[in-house]
Amino acid sequence: MSGNTLGHIFKLTTFGESHGKALGGILDGVPPGIVLDLSEIQKIVDRRKPGNSAYVTSRKEEDQVEFLSGLLDGTTTGTPLMFIVNNTDQRSKDYDNYKDVYRPGHGDMTYDHKYGIRDHRGGGRASARETVSRVIGGAVALQILKSLWQKDLFIRTCVVQLGKHKVPEHVLDSVDWGFVASNPLKCPCPNTLKIWQKEMDVLIDSGKSVGANVYMETTDLKIGLGAPVFDKLDADLAKAWMSINAVKSVCLGKTFDVASADQGFDEMQIKDGSFQFNSNRSGGTLAGISTGQPIVGLIGFKPTSSNLINRKTINSQGGNVEINISGRHDPCVALRAGPIVEAMTALTLLDHYLLHRAQCGDR
Amino acid sequence: MSGNTLGHIFKLTTFGESHGKALGGILDGVPPGIVLDLSEIQKIVDRRKPGNSAYVTSRKEEDQVEFLSGLLDGTTTGTPLMFIVNNTDQRSKDYDNYKDVYRPGHGDMTYDHKYGIRDHRGGGRASARETVSRVIGGAVALQILKSLWQKDLFIRTCVVQLGKHKVPEHVLDSVDWGFVASNPLKCPCPNTLKIWQKEMDVLIDSGKSVGANVYMETTDLKIGLGAPVFDKLDADLAKAWMSINAVKSVCLGKTFDVASADQGFDEMQIKDGSFQFNSNRSGGTLAGISTGQPIVGLIGFKPTSSNLINRKTINSQGGNVEINISGRHDPCVALRAGPIVEAMTALTLLDHYLLHRAQCGDR
Amino acid sequence: MSGNTLGHIFKLTTFGESHGKALGGILDGVPPGIVLDLSEIQKIVDRRKPGNSAYVTSRKEEDQVEFLSGLLDGTTTGTPLMFIVNNTDQRSKDYDNYKDVYRPGHGDMTYDHKYGIRDHRGGGRASARETVSRVIGGAVALQILKSLWQKDLFIRTCVVQLGKHKVPEHVLDSVDWGFVASNPLKCPCPNTLKIWQKEMDVLIDSGKSVGANVYMETTDLKIGLGAPVFDKLDADLAKAWMSINAVKSVCLGKTFDVASADQGFDEMQIKDGSFQFNSNRSGGTLAGISTGQPIVGLIGFKPTSSNLINRKTINSQGGNVEINISGRHDPCVALRAGPIVEAMTALTLLDHYLLHRAQCGDR
Amino acid sequence: MSGNTLGHIFKLTTFGESHGKALGGILDGVPPGIVLDLSEIQKIVDRRKPGNSAYVTSRKEEDQVEFLSGLLDGTTTGTPLMFIVNNTDQRSKDYDNYKDVYRPGHGDMTYDHKYGIRDHRGGGRASARETVSRVIGGAVALQILKSLWQKDLFIRTCVVQLGKHKVPEHVLDSVDWGFVASNPLKCPCPNTLKIWQKEMDVLIDSGKSVGANVYMETTDLKIGLGAPVFDKLDADLAKAWMSINAVKSVCLGKTFDVASADQGFDEMQIKDGSFQFNSNRSGGTLAGISTGQPIVGLIGFKPTSSNLINRKTINSQGGNVEINISGRHDPCVALRAGPIVEAMTALTLLDHYLLHRAQCGDR
Repeated sequence: MSGNTLGHIFKLTTFGESHGKALGGILDGVPPGIVLDLSEIQKIVDRRKPGNSAYVTSRKEEDQVEFLSGLLDGTTTGTPLMFIVNNTDQRSKDYDNYKDVYRPGHGDMTYDHKYGIRDHRGGGRASARETVSRVIGGAVALQILKSLWQKDLFIRTCVVQLGKHKVPEHVLDSVDWGFVASNPLKCPCPNTLKIWQKEMDVLIDSGKSVGANVYMETTDLKIGLGAPVFDKLDADLAKAWMSINAVKSVCLGKTFDVASADQGFDEMQIKDGSFQFNSNRSGGTLAGISTGQPIVGLIGFKPTSSNLINRKTINSQGGNVEINISGRHDPCVALRAGPIVEAMTALTLLDHYLLHRAQCGDR
Repeated sequence: MSGNTLGHIFKLTTFGESHGKALGGILDGVPPGIVLDLSEIQKIVDRRKPGNSAYVTSRKEEDQVEFLSGLLDGTTTGTPLMFIVNNTDQRSKDYDNYKDVYRPGHGDMTYDHKYGIRDHRGGGRASARETVSRVIGGAVALQILKSLWQKDLFIRTCVVQLGKHKVPEHVLDSVDWGFVASNPLKCPCPNTLKIWQKEMDVLIDSGKSVGANVYMETTDLKIGLGAPVFDKLDADLAKAWMSINAVKSVCLGKTFDVASADQGFDEMQIKDGSFQFNSNRSGGTLAGISTGQPIVGLIGFKPTSSNLINRKTINSQGGNVEINISGRHDPCVALRAGPIVEAMTALTLLDHYLLHRAQCGDR
Repeated sequence: MSGNTLGHIFKLTTFGESHGKALGGILDGVPPGIVLDLSEIQKIVDRRKPGNSAYVTSRKEEDQVEFLSGLLDGTTTGTPLMFIVNNTDQRSKDYDNYKDVYRPGHGDMTYDHKYGIRDHRGGGRASARETVSRVIGGAVALQILKSLWQKDLFIRTCVVQLGKHKVPEHVLDSVDWGFVASNPLKCPCPNTLKIWQKEMDVLIDSGKSVGANVYMETTDLKIGLGAPVFDKLDADLAKAWMSINAVKSVCLGKTFDVASADQGFDEMQIKDGSFQFNSNRSGGTLAGISTGQPIVGLIGFKPTSSNLINRKTINSQGGNVEINISGRHDPCVALRAGPIVEAMTALTLLDHYLLHRAQCGDR
Repeated sequence: MSGNTLGHIFKLTTFGESHGKALGGILDGVPPGIVLDLSEIQKIVDRRKPGNSAYVTSRKEEDQVEFLSGLLDGTTTGTPLMFIVNNTDQRSKDYDNYKDVYRPGHGDMTYDHKYGIRDHRGGGRASARETVSRVIGGAVALQILKSLWQKDLFIRTCVVQLGKHKVPEHVLDSVDWGFVASNPLKCPCPNTLKIWQKEMDVLIDSGKSVGANVYMETTDLKIGLGAPVFDKLDADLAKAWMSINAVKSVCLGKTFDVASADQGFDEMQIKDGSFQFNSNRSGGTLAGISTGQPIVGLIGFKPTSSNLINRKTINSQGGNVEINISGRHDPCVALRAGPIVEAMTALTLLDHYLLHRAQCGDR
């Protein structure tokens, strides 16, 4: 077990290196009889593609998804769903300079120590490229959730902090998702967007990079996904999100700073005959189980390690060297992370829906 | 699978309700031949006990740990290590008032919806009482890690934010662990401690509660624990920490706000013949694998849901009611959380050490 | 992971040594709302108890089952069901002679080599005593299956071969279960019973032991449990049965000798408006999935290793010695194995029922 | 979880339908630094290929194995090893006749009931074609075992019973593996071979099929693989073997009939300074742990379900029909099963070796 499988009973197992022949994965535990919209899956994959705005790397990844098993005329058969994306633009030579150098902020050093061998071309499995398999798996999971569990389910993300600049709090009370989709920085606030655009222009000129916070929100979920001890829904979401490259902090709710919250609970009421919470401080889970409110969370990404700023490091022979990293890289990796966060959320929700159905039946 | 097992190959499975006959667990995958210091384990368990300072609930839990299998004259045999703690002070009647009322901030409502049945006495499995099993499991894990892997291993915690009041940043450069141990608020800073003590006095008088951030730090770890994709060491730590009651936010490193960090990497150097990092922004992992630096993290606890402030809620018949929660409760649950965070860390590290040994051998 | 958990999502984790303080286990993934008949569970446990006939060991095991969690007024709550059986008649001194001697046919030698330490009193975890936890877990599983899935479910066993003497084939066409229950050798055939009784008398006098085949049969099962590749229902049954002490051979169907069968299939027909198979060569599964016919199987037990016949062996210092084993032992361990085989079958069926419900819903 | 993964920590997950675009799998938990001999793997795969003797189906499967990840210049990197075999000779039209007919002895009926949908072309996942992925996975496992654990390891199989005709017992005392490899019926005995050849000629003329027993034998194994309760080495082998298509019975040792054995143990002795067992009735395990002797076992295959004999069955509309199965099929599926049995054995041994290394270290 070297950790390439996610999920308890809806399982995504992925394979493939950044600069190998192909990447992809196997989904096991797929419910049968689900009609998949494959073009919709391709569209979601295209959203994470580099090269679709001025602010992200121009590496051309075609990312054509092909399903090799588990479907009969586009319908799931209950057998493993295998998908593959061939690597067409490998340019491994870009990485020849780093064959013996440990890039700071990357896994080069830890890889070499752990495994005694390292595929130096683009970070191997630790490359952001690996996330294409997550996005495909998540896109499948979302369609299954909509089909079996909750038709109106949406899982959406936007960027709410870029470097030191935050979106005003009230914007998250009611996000304009159309606006988010319309701008390359996935910002939900027109005023903040202008500030960020200036910052990005400076960054790109200077060769620097910047961190960001991604906000995730679902529609109202049905009550009952999760469990009260180790496999809390929030604990599994935390793992799923934290496993994304460059993520360093995660929370349930709209702020990392729960320590200074005035209260730790949400009042409940029957109003006009229907049940409601008066707030959503919990972020949508209580005792590890979904409350029926939206799941909301924040995911913090560090500044991209690879940028043009010189830095000290060592090589594998133990010598001191200084490098900068001139390859194709994003100044802010979080800008492409929305579909990945959404995918990890969908995979976790479906896994917990199936666990719930196993233990408690179809209610 | 209702999620009562933690770990990939070193597995802790726990059982027991807050007000049932007993709590405990089974550790499976225990390496043989480890001499356990059982009195040391009891000491660690006593640290999480309520009633050991003015600031925590006065519930008397004896928490006498008994091992029923897996040991021969105090040495592990490789068979399952089963431990049990009998509940001696159950006082279930305290909870009769809440039999039909959903306490806000607790899992009462979600439990009832998910399972259709609920043990209303003290939250069942969702009680903080359940964490006694984690602490015991973690104490065993720590001794195994010290015996097999890293003799000088320490895993320590302190409180670095209480409500809105933070400890100054520089204090974490070199924590005075003796001072932390000496004060009931587990504060690493004498000046901050005074402020917190005033705040706690006010809180206790007013019946309110407060959130807090717990800081976790290990000694320098050996390089190589973890894996680069889903089961990243940081991802598994995030899950383990987020699964603790009342935790809402977690991060690797000393700040949740990685988004505004200047850099996303740590320089490496050979200095005076030995390898070093020039900083520890990563929190001790790269590509999901331990770097050799200390693992450091922050864990954010919400204010205790149970306090004396009136709040609106509903009962299971769907009527609106108003309650406060007058039982034995802590104004700040994080004050007792240190041993739990340390335990979850130890369990995760040992699991990854054994996974590493399986895949890569004993180097 | 040292293999003390059975099941994919309905999980039984057991603990306890033959001569330790207690044995027991945790069931996780228990569906909520099931009313358990605890006295029925105790009755099933009593069936495997030694000392209930002339032909089995007179060791007095009280085997009083106690449930410590997971129940509210006898109804499952969905939380882990923990049960324990205290060891009251340990008599560990019986085993002092074997402290340094490797008993042939037992795990003493392999234990010492694998773990470097061994609890010599009664075989530790490798004792038949460990199966009490399996029987309890299986008794719970059976009640859940009857409650959720198939009301009329029966899982029954009898002995069909003792040493070289087989029950005539036609007897299995329609087993007289009342007769089986009425005789201490669990024989379904009055004529064969007489032969076996003579054989047993000779065996007991001579201090020898004998092997046996146990036959297992369920009622007609609903179609659809299992999966077509690795986790075939028959594969998981094979594992569950083979994991019972002293079992060396298992098969689906009424004969081990499928190689010489005339055909490898069962014809299907609609007759008088209802579907039927014309035979049950398959033993109740096709492509790893239950066919709707009874699951039937044979489980082969070797002669009890412990008997009064002298044998050559070595001690842990590497010297040659000769021993016989004079403790309390059964001449034919299979005579007490029925409830264990039934339990392993029930655990496997429930696990697969819940897996089926997860993937395919409640149909 | 629909059961397409085998193994506790060395995990093979397979995908692909008999008549889809491709079959293959992902191996996770692969130790790094192992130089794989890919042409040797291809050779083993070729051994299971149909069309390599007069007695097996003439379906032309090229079965060209391609590895798409996890290797750097032929050396394992510790990342997932993904392999794929494209289907080049699909001829799905052969199966159009069976679209609505449930073939007796096949999973057609159970599939339709369980999943509500079925890929009728060649049995989908329940096809013997799926075993190509097992053979590849096992060939990799074998090389890893030889490299890390036991250089001289061999896992070999022969056919010891064809229909009613058994090889004489004494032949298994010392199998002539060269002779086995030289004949298409994998028979270890020249005299028996002649009888079998006549039988096969008659079978082929008559369109009938026949069952067989496969015998499996390893070299002397190191002591210590396995565990004493559920995950016994023999229990996991039983599952692995029983999960092979058409297998109905399995045993450890050289006979299914352990019930009539004279003794249930093997004497041990020090002779000329070295340790030995005086027999191997146990089949190489005690208390679920390898004894150091060869693991030996028997695997019983039913007669191939598909043959030219007419049989009664129903169609999916519930009508009675009569069919025979005229496609490309083997009269005795066991003749091609040797490499599959060897593969399942190698996968299980490696998994247990890594589990042992995790728990007990490298001794």
